[in-house]
Amino acid sequence: MIDSTSGARAELEQARREQELTDLVVASFGLTGDARLRQVLQSATRHLHAFIREVRLTEGEWNNGIQFLTEAGHITDEHRQEFILLSDVFGASMQTIAVNNRAHGNATEATVFGPFHTEDAPYIEFGGDIAGGAVGEPCWVEGTVTDLEGSPIGGARIEVWEADADGYYDVQYNDERVAGRAWFETDADGRYAFWGVTPTPYPIPHDGPVGRMLERAGRSPYRAAHLHFMVTAKEMRTLVTHIFVEGDPQLEIGDSVFGVKDSLIKRFERQSAQTPTPDGRDLAGGTWSRSKFDIMLAPAS
Amino acid sequence: MIDSTSGARAELEQARREQELTDLVVASFGLTGDARLRQVLQSATRHLHAFIREVRLTEGEWNNGIQFLTEAGHITDEHRQEFILLSDVFGASMQTIAVNNRAHGNATEATVFGPFHTEDAPYIEFGGDIAGGAVGEPCWVEGTVTDLEGSPIGGARIEVWEADADGYYDVQYNDERVAGRAWFETDADGRYAFWGVTPTPYPIPHDGPVGRMLERAGRSPYRAAHLHFMVTAKEMRTLVTHIFVEGDPQLEIGDSVFGVKDSLIKRFERQSAQTPTPDGRDLAGGTWSRSKFDIMLAPAS
Repeated sequence: MIDSTSGARAELEQARREQELTDLVVASFGLTGDARLRQVLQSATRHLHAFIREVRLTEGEWNNGIQFLTEAGHITDEHRQEFILLSDVFGASMQTIAVNNRAHGNATEATVFGPFHTEDAPYIEFGGDIAGGAVGEPCWVEGTVTDLEGSPIGGARIEVWEADADGYYDVQYNDERVAGRAWFETDADGRYAFWGVTPTPYPIPHDGPVGRMLERAGRSPYRAAHLHFMVTAKEMRTLVTHIFVEGDPQLEIGDSVFGVKDSLIKRFERQSAQTPTPDGRDLAGGTWSRSKFDIMLAPAS
Repeated sequence: MIDSTSGARAELEQARREQELTDLVVASFGLTGDARLRQVLQSATRHLHAFIREVRLTEGEWNNGIQFLTEAGHITDEHRQEFILLSDVFGASMQTIAVNNRAHGNATEATVFGPFHTEDAPYIEFGGDIAGGAVGEPCWVEGTVTDLEGSPIGGARIEVWEADADGYYDVQYNDERVAGRAWFETDADGRYAFWGVTPTPYPIPHDGPVGRMLERAGRSPYRAAHLHFMVTAKEMRTLVTHIFVEGDPQLEIGDSVFGVKDSLIKRFERQSAQTPTPDGRDLAGGTWSRSKFDIMLAPAS
C-alpha cells in the first residue's frame, strides 16, 4: 500500500511540474505587445509542450530533432527550401491553405502554392502555348471563370505553371530558360484556353533530411501529376490551386504534399495523332491530350 | 434563415475538410517501420495541425515561420546553435528534461544541460580550483552526494562548469583556453568541495532570430546566474542540473530558458576579505562567497 500511494503521489507531482512549466512559458509571452503574435506564440508553446509530454520525448530524440532542423537549415539556399518541404510533407502547408480558403458553397477548392511560382511569366493570347520549349506531350486546357452564381467573369487574370515531362520546372535548370509558365486573361464570356504539356508525376527534392524522413516512413516522395493555377479577379477571393490527372497511379499511392482534392481531379483525354486540334494547330503527327477546368471564384469578403 | 443555415453548413464542411486532412497525414505515417518513430511523427502531425487550426494561421504568418527557421538554420554553425536556443526559450528543452527526470521522492531536481558542456574538462583534487584563470570573485562550494535515504555515495563523479564574470564560457572565446570547468569525485563520506567563481547572470546569444523574437515578446534574454553540475554514480540516475543564486534579481525577471527550480536556489554567502577561507587559501585581500549544495540521487531504474 505504501508503495502504490507513494507511486501515485510521484505521478501527481510529475504532472504538476510539467503543467507548471508549460504555464510559466505561456505567461512569459504575456507581455508581447502585438496581441496576434502573443496568441500565436502562446498557442505554439501549448501544442509543443503537449507533444513532448504526450510522446514522453527522450533526450536522444530531442537531440535528433535539433540535428534534423540543423541539416534542413544547412541544405536550404536560394534554390532549395527544405523547411517548405518539411511543412509540405507534414500537411502543414495544406492545412494553412485549408484554414485560409474556407469552404464557400461550390467555389473551386484551393491547394498548395508550392515553391516554383515566379513573377516573370510571359503573357500569351487566348489559345497560346505556355510550353516555351518544355518537353512533353501537348495538352489543350480550356474552361471558364465564373462567380458562384455561374455569371462569367471577363478579364480575370490566370497564371499557370507546370513541370516538364522530365519532372523539372524551368527554375530547376541551371540556365535562364522560362518554360512551362505564362499568364493570360479570360475573354468577355469568362473563357480561357491554352496549350501546355500533359502533367506527369515527379518527386519533390528528396536527397536531404526530409527525403530521408519520408524513406524511413515508407512514404513516396512523388507528387501526383498536376498543373498549377492562380486566378485573380476584381472583388473575388484569389484562388491558388492545381488540377490533377484522373487515372494517375500516384493518386492512389498518395500525393507527397497532400494537395489532392477530389474536386480537382480532371479527365485528361488522350487524343490520337489523327484527331484535329481545337485551333487547327499542326502537332506534326504527335499525340496530345485535352482537359476542361471550369473555375468558380468566391467573393473576396 | 437560409443565410444562417448555409453558414452553419459551410462551417461544418470546413471543419470536416480540416479534420480529414489531419487524418490523411496521420495515416500516411502509418507504414513507418519503427513503431516509436511512427508514434512521434503521428503525434507531431496532430499537434502541428491543431496549432494551425486553433490560431487560424495566415499564409503570411506561415511565410514568416519559414523565414524564421531559414534564418535560424543559416546562423547555426559549429559554434552557434540557434535551434537549441529556440527550444530553450520555448521551454521545450526544459519540458524534455522534466519528462525524462520523473519526480522521485526528494531526489535533487534536474535542469537544462545547455550548449557549453565539453568532454575535456581537467581533473581536480578535493578543494581544488576549477577557475583556470576565469575572471570572477572566488566562490567555495561544498556538499555531499547521497542516495534518497541519505547514505553517502563515495566515488561519485561530479562535473561542474560555469561562465566567467564577463558572462562567457571558455568555449565562447576565440582561443584554446580551458577555464571554469573541471571534474572530481566525492570522498568515501560522499563529500566534495571546490573553488569556482561566484555565478553572474549573462544573456543567451541574442543577435539572431531567437533574440529578435524575445525582443518582440518583451522578454529578457538573460539567464539567472548559475553553476552547472553533472553527477554520475553507479546504479544511480545521472543528474544534470544547476544551482542558482538566492537574491539574483534575474530570478524575479525570469530565466530566459526556464531552468530555475525553487529547490535549486542556494544561498551564496558573501564573505569579507578578512574572513578566513575554509582551506586556508590566501585570496590576496579579495572578497569571496561560499555555498552548500547537498545532492540526492535517484536510483537508475
